[in-house]
Amino acid sequence: MLNPQLNKNGELQHLLTIEGLPKAHILHILDTASSFVSIGDREVKKVPLMRGKSVFNLFFENSTRTRTTFEIASKRLSADVINLNIAASSSSKGESLLDTIDNLSAMHADMFVVRHAQSGAPYLIAKHLNDTMQPHVHVVNAGDGRHAHPTQGLLDMYTIRHYKKDFSNLTVAIVGDILHSRVARSDIHALTTLGVPEVRAIGPRTLLPSGLEQMGVRVFTDINKGLKDVDVIIMLRLQNERMSGALLPSAQEFFKSYGLTTERLALAKPDAIVMHPGPMNRGVEIESAVADGTQAVILPQVTFGIAVRMAVMSILAGN
Amino acid sequence: MLNPQLNKNGELQHLLTIEGLPKAHILHILDTASSFVSIGDREVKKVPLMRGKSVFNLFFENSTRTRTTFEIASKRLSADVINLNIAASSSSKGESLLDTIDNLSAMHADMFVVRHAQSGAPYLIAKHLNDTMQPHVHVVNAGDGRHAHPTQGLLDMYTIRHYKKDFSNLTVAIVGDILHSRVARSDIHALTTLGVPEVRAIGPRTLLPSGLEQMGVRVFTDINKGLKDVDVIIMLRLQNERMSGALLPSAQEFFKSYGLTTERLALAKPDAIVMHPGPMNRGVEIESAVADGTQAVILPQVTFGIAVRMAVMSILAGN
Amino acid sequence: MLNPQLNKNGELQHLLTIEGLPKAHILHILDTASSFVSIGDREVKKVPLMRGKSVFNLFFENSTRTRTTFEIASKRLSADVINLNIAASSSSKGESLLDTIDNLSAMHADMFVVRHAQSGAPYLIAKHLNDTMQPHVHVVNAGDGRHAHPTQGLLDMYTIRHYKKDFSNLTVAIVGDILHSRVARSDIHALTTLGVPEVRAIGPRTLLPSGLEQMGVRVFTDINKGLKDVDVIIMLRLQNERMSGALLPSAQEFFKSYGLTTERLALAKPDAIVMHPGPMNRGVEIESAVADGTQAVILPQVTFGIAVRMAVMSILAGN
Repeated sequence: MLNPQLNKNGELQHLLTIEGLPKAHILHILDTASSFVSIGDREVKKVPLMRGKSVFNLFFENSTRTRTTFEIASKRLSADVINLNIAASSSSKGESLLDTIDNLSAMHADMFVVRHAQSGAPYLIAKHLNDTMQPHVHVVNAGDGRHAHPTQGLLDMYTIRHYKKDFSNLTVAIVGDILHSRVARSDIHALTTLGVPEVRAIGPRTLLPSGLEQMGVRVFTDINKGLKDVDVIIMLRLQNERMSGALLPSAQEFFKSYGLTTERLALAKPDAIVMHPGPMNRGVEIESAVADGTQAVILPQVTFGIAVRMAVMSILAGN
Repeated sequence: MLNPQLNKNGELQHLLTIEGLPKAHILHILDTASSFVSIGDREVKKVPLMRGKSVFNLFFENSTRTRTTFEIASKRLSADVINLNIAASSSSKGESLLDTIDNLSAMHADMFVVRHAQSGAPYLIAKHLNDTMQPHVHVVNAGDGRHAHPTQGLLDMYTIRHYKKDFSNLTVAIVGDILHSRVARSDIHALTTLGVPEVRAIGPRTLLPSGLEQMGVRVFTDINKGLKDVDVIIMLRLQNERMSGALLPSAQEFFKSYGLTTERLALAKPDAIVMHPGPMNRGVEIESAVADGTQAVILPQVTFGIAVRMAVMSILAGN
Repeated sequence: MLNPQLNKNGELQHLLTIEGLPKAHILHILDTASSFVSIGDREVKKVPLMRGKSVFNLFFENSTRTRTTFEIASKRLSADVINLNIAASSSSKGESLLDTIDNLSAMHADMFVVRHAQSGAPYLIAKHLNDTMQPHVHVVNAGDGRHAHPTQGLLDMYTIRHYKKDFSNLTVAIVGDILHSRVARSDIHALTTLGVPEVRAIGPRTLLPSGLEQMGVRVFTDINKGLKDVDVIIMLRLQNERMSGALLPSAQEFFKSYGLTTERLALAKPDAIVMHPGPMNRGVEIESAVADGTQAVILPQVTFGIAVRMAVMSILAGN
């Protein structure tokens, strides 16, 4: 399936993935986000850019945290937001995904923010909207299966640019369960597109997907070697459901081998920053002293995430 | 119980049922809805008609789809909406229905949109509000048991008028599980009131209620005879829970005997329209080729439904 | 732990408890609430005092009724409200309470309305916000364990002042399950602070906590003696879960011994008012004839409750 996220004029019609997203689009989103960062500090944290627009949060997979960030971003853009927890509703009545979308479009939806356990679901929706000539309706992928989580990737890039100014001299390490992580995939594509010369993936062999080298990533199974002189460390959340599985001995073992401790952080550059998409498992992938330490930028990531989502939504709504 | 939906001046105080609703009121709602249809296409899809009013969606029975249409309609009228899933809340604490209503009224509610599995629940609430001298609080029945679903009936009338202009020469067929359908009941009352000369009910004998003839409806158990030369076909949703029951052999059998196929559609007038309240069971009551065909007006029904609900709410709030 | 609800200048930074809250603050809240009571009767029930502010309803314990009152109060102040049912979300992902708070603060939250089954949880949050230098984020305790329910206490004081004008000559009786009631605790502290000369607690010995006398409360196990000549009767809700326990024989027995009947009400002053925090168990702690009688002010309590919550939120947001 051709990527339907750009329209014929090359404008952003939907945001589905960072893979193949031109560098100019990524930079435009980051620049637009800059203008929204300060809104959070204002007395009245609202701009009227999406007043009267209807945004539907379609969460086929539960995620209060991500849903909340999009809900806040929508409200600060003055949009009307409707939260639909679809898992519990019409799909149980046997209606197909695309019938649900057609129905909501017929209610004059302007934007769907879609979270789905199946990779590709937001593509299917975007393609359907394009095929049925509904260019005024936009899709934002809020995480699909193991595939992509583009707004997380973009907010990670915003954070890196904020602290490191320039991408062209950086070494960035992504640590943990790369195999199951849509965040890792989105980050790798973004970092590569933005010209980061060295991207590293660090994790146990069982949690490293094949094909990383072809994506231009250096693979390390020894975290002490992998963290050597890096500028940015992106820790991944270890999904609880993996821990007791065949892929991993235990949370304690994982921490011993791959947890980010103060000692290990000292291997990176002195001004290295530590990132995490949240929610953190303290004592599993990251030591509390690091999570709360001066090099951690985990909470600024959250702040920037609202601005980046506002940027994506307002750019889509304007096209 | 006398119908409490009209006040002493004959104005619409609540919308509880189409049965007994004067023709002038129905036409006034449809005319008002016309003015709201275009709002959906505007850049800013909002009017300030209910700004600062508090609308409570009281859903004692879960229905994401209907709740969503009322939520959108409320927000486009600039009302504040509070969603209450009552099944899960205070009724479990043993509070009575009317105590709940009194409490919400005391919070200065302006309107209750009520969905309830028990027929008559919205009546009980409306009567209580009238009895306790609270004429500023309005009730909209969003579906009560097998009894009525008046806003669905009204949006169906809007759709028919939109495509057929005039009710006075039409033959309208309602097909499927008439027995359990509040939509069918509301449609029959509306069609009769608006002067449609021939209303047909088509279905297996086990799913046809007694008394249809007294309501002026022609009954058919043979769909091929029933669809002959009709102008409008209203398909009903077959409730999953009926399918495996004693009333019906199976979904496949039902489709064979009563499903709307391309062949059967050809029996109707060439410009006949096909309607369905949704969500559809494709391959059960309707063939996909028909649902997606040029005669289907199922998605316009959804669009008109928002406008009709805005009309009902703004009329009530204005009285 | 020192009470973190007042800042260094003695201003209200958070509302956590009425215990130790200076009388001037209580009166300021009640006076501010007066100005909001009339808003409920206006055509447009909104004021722009919190426009663009983000209020998070953090309900770790389900309570539709209380959540609704805060949601309405927020919307009438023009704030953006985000409802988070935390029981079902990130705490299940193993994130700590304070990590959740830090994340939401990073999204530029302005206020947390917190309901928690554990006594002290709102304190922990408030203390954390103070310790991490986030004085612009405010906490309102919406009920924590058996400890406190300060906005209920305040709305009870508002109601008493509305009907009795002056606190300095009153006898107030609180009846029922004092032991488990955060409402009773908040009311006792408020009444004492406001100078009510006689506060009585009436209930079976098993439901009376120790230490009431030290708080200046007269204890009665005989309701007929306790109600003698009182000006105000505050009935408490009997929690269903207590009824079948060891502390109580049965709901019927309780009604026989402590239910407020018309006969017992006649023991109080002729102009005594009857209050109840709701939801009521009719026939358990209160007879229907009393609940619906002329001396009951239970629904006005609900109305005043919205105004009191608006007052608390706007005062906090202004500091």
